[in-house]
Amino acid sequence: MGRIIVEVMPKPEILDPQGKAVGSALPRLGITGFQAVRQGKCFHLSVEGPVTGELLAEARKAAEEVLSNPIIEDVVRVEAIDEADARYAGGAR
Amino acid sequence: MGRIIVEVMPKPEILDPQGKAVGSALPRLGITGFQAVRQGKCFHLSVEGPVTGELLAEARKAAEEVLSNPIIEDVVRVEAIDEADARYAGGAR
Repeated sequence: MGRIIVEVMPKPEILDPQGKAVGSALPRLGITGFQAVRQGKCFHLSVEGPVTGELLAEARKAAEEVLSNPIIEDVVRVEAIDEADARYAGGAR
Repeated sequence: MGRIIVEVMPKPEILDPQGKAVGSALPRLGITGFQAVRQGKCFHLSVEGPVTGELLAEARKAAEEVLSNPIIEDVVRVEAIDEADARYAGGAR
């Protein structure tokens, strides 16, 4: 069982009201030090067996055609998740 | 100007209707090969100057306390974005 991560963010020229709201909430909650916040989406795609180049290509296609809206969003990252990475161990199976 | 990425995913034991909807839409659109999809959130936090350990600690605090709901979500990743990474160049400034 492998997994592929797809990261989708609003394009830089697009206003991001969710990110803006988070960004202005942080200082009110005592968390300073951040100038701006942008909010996007992550997808974890599970595949049977190991992640192959073919599956990555298919994930890239899914990212461009289904998981993102190319008018307002950029696909930032499509890559295999390293299952040995403890951070991902519980996160999204 | 540095940026920190925070990735938040629904806990494994939590149903993820958005991810489920995407997962069942893909085969209908001719994209097979994926067993399951989980959908989460990404945040890009901009900081003035380079990303320091202190800022990463503050981002981790923001991630745990503000950016995620610990009852249903896990913070999967908090790390500095490599600004030399072309994928992040346009994505989320």
